[in-house]
Amino acid sequence: MSTYQIGVVVGSLRKESFNRQMATAIAKLAPSEFKFKHIDIGDLPLYNQDNDGNPPEVVKKLKAEISASQGILFLTPEYNRSIPGVLKNALDHASRPYGQNIWAGKPTAVMGVSVGATGTGLAQQHLRNILAYLDMPTLNQPEVFLQMKEGLFDGAGNIGENSLKFLQGFMDNYVAWVKKHAK
Amino acid sequence: MSTYQIGVVVGSLRKESFNRQMATAIAKLAPSEFKFKHIDIGDLPLYNQDNDGNPPEVVKKLKAEISASQGILFLTPEYNRSIPGVLKNALDHASRPYGQNIWAGKPTAVMGVSVGATGTGLAQQHLRNILAYLDMPTLNQPEVFLQMKEGLFDGAGNIGENSLKFLQGFMDNYVAWVKKHAK
Amino acid sequence: MSTYQIGVVVGSLRKESFNRQMATAIAKLAPSEFKFKHIDIGDLPLYNQDNDGNPPEVVKKLKAEISASQGILFLTPEYNRSIPGVLKNALDHASRPYGQNIWAGKPTAVMGVSVGATGTGLAQQHLRNILAYLDMPTLNQPEVFLQMKEGLFDGAGNIGENSLKFLQGFMDNYVAWVKKHAK
Amino acid sequence: MSTYQIGVVVGSLRKESFNRQMATAIAKLAPSEFKFKHIDIGDLPLYNQDNDGNPPEVVKKLKAEISASQGILFLTPEYNRSIPGVLKNALDHASRPYGQNIWAGKPTAVMGVSVGATGTGLAQQHLRNILAYLDMPTLNQPEVFLQMKEGLFDGAGNIGENSLKFLQGFMDNYVAWVKKHAK
Repeated sequence: MSTYQIGVVVGSLRKESFNRQMATAIAKLAPSEFKFKHIDIGDLPLYNQDNDGNPPEVVKKLKAEISASQGILFLTPEYNRSIPGVLKNALDHASRPYGQNIWAGKPTAVMGVSVGATGTGLAQQHLRNILAYLDMPTLNQPEVFLQMKEGLFDGAGNIGENSLKFLQGFMDNYVAWVKKHAK
Repeated sequence: MSTYQIGVVVGSLRKESFNRQMATAIAKLAPSEFKFKHIDIGDLPLYNQDNDGNPPEVVKKLKAEISASQGILFLTPEYNRSIPGVLKNALDHASRPYGQNIWAGKPTAVMGVSVGATGTGLAQQHLRNILAYLDMPTLNQPEVFLQMKEGLFDGAGNIGENSLKFLQGFMDNYVAWVKKHAK
Repeated sequence: MSTYQIGVVVGSLRKESFNRQMATAIAKLAPSEFKFKHIDIGDLPLYNQDNDGNPPEVVKKLKAEISASQGILFLTPEYNRSIPGVLKNALDHASRPYGQNIWAGKPTAVMGVSVGATGTGLAQQHLRNILAYLDMPTLNQPEVFLQMKEGLFDGAGNIGENSLKFLQGFMDNYVAWVKKHAK
Repeated sequence: MSTYQIGVVVGSLRKESFNRQMATAIAKLAPSEFKFKHIDIGDLPLYNQDNDGNPPEVVKKLKAEISASQGILFLTPEYNRSIPGVLKNALDHASRPYGQNIWAGKPTAVMGVSVGATGTGLAQQHLRNILAYLDMPTLNQPEVFLQMKEGLFDGAGNIGENSLKFLQGFMDNYVAWVKKHAK
């Protein structure tokens, strides 16, 4: 039985990030042949095209981790009605230099937790434009716009029961999507 | 006669950035009471909400420079159909912590130079969403979607004659906009 | 004392439209020199550029009503993560023929009521891009993303008390914005 | 050998529409098992939710034609930095009533011809958000942003030689995408 390594990219660097908590919780809903691996984007320098020819080790490591993944999962908060600069910076690094976009072809999905009800949807609208250009087949439905509130997680950090059926449905769709598009 | 300090934010860190060249060239089209000052965003750390209470000096400096400006001018390339992570990171830093968005109320305009004909327009579509949320009155017209090609600049780094009338019109509108909205 | 005629454009044709109800309710929060007038968009034909030279009467009427307004107020639901085709069709008609965009310069604001918490925000993100191009100075803040639920309106169709302070603040900002930008 | 019926939706009603010309020309680049059929959207009424329970014949016909298609191809101009209201109106009709979105699952691609270099890209950025919500698997690459100029078509209305290789590549990707996703 083949296994699928899923690179998980979280758009927030906050230690107690809701999106990071969600990344841990949602992984438990996947079948056993799916292995989720956190891809760190917090040590990257700000992208500068002048370094395209000689990227630092941390950028090479980022690209290697993406390359080793059969799928990617993005979990992102919304900052100022778009995705965090931190996340865009990682997307930019691994798309370069021109013609060596390492994201291309990796199936993906986007989800997000935000404090308000509206935020993550607005960020995801921009993110989907970017992922289309990066040539990542992106799961359409269900959209996952989560609001951080009592009960989203249970006491053990698992998905709370109110969201469980919805998020299991998301995961099932994601698994099928990755299997359909993984190379 | 009052003077207006304009903070210039360039979305690319590349040393020979076309947008940085344009920043220098366009400033020459402004009346003498407008003083353009480059705001550096290349030394900022990646934004992390955990540091909101105790931002590093370079973030305080960024906020002070924005605060001292009567207007802002953004010049941005397009990376992956949106604005560079570098630029979004700066926007995020100066918008935080919650309730202390330092960009608010600063009149602004956006312009961009890209290698292809389409790029900067797509980036600006996202940027305008962000600036609306940041409560920056943003000049609507003319849109400035510039393609880097022979003649955009003359030998001395000034605006080439083909674009001069258009960009002088942009600058005249920008000057009137800043005067109308500056506090 | 001068008066301001505000053209109100509602994106839904539904008879019991929440956005139309809101249009009526919000007008009561304005000062007496602001007169709100509904602009009907439900009888327009589908826009066809071939008719630019000889538009039907209903299109001429639309343009005349916009032209007679000192400001515009848009209230729109979200259909499929963007604005309704009905609303875009009206925007298209009055922007044409090329060079005779009748919306240009009219100060405006956008607000919306949707059934879900997220919808109208996503529609407004697209609408703001369009309004920038149409050269309409658009109020930035507060964003008005309303969810239709018990208490949004009181029994008499007025704004319910939970939203009253927020929407009065919006109206005050809108009034100041129109006065600043009206010609 | 199975055949694939492709519903072609053109965003402009203009008789000499460049996008309609392109629809005819691009179809010739497809393999013989792909049959392209124009879906007319010019006779639709403006969408009104009050008619969801009893749609007119022309709406039923639209839905039947989409339903009978194994894939959809959108060709759209840009009006005011988004898609035409005419096109959005058709998208809205066939997505309703709630729970009966007839577009769902149909593989698709977007392309466009505009007079300026920038326009169609900005329209497509909005269109892709809408298609994701409508749950249509949408081809990512190549983006097709065409500018109407001498030589785009040859004298017989076929694709001109400068664009032929690029558009054949697009068609090959589209064919593979439809085969992968058609049900």
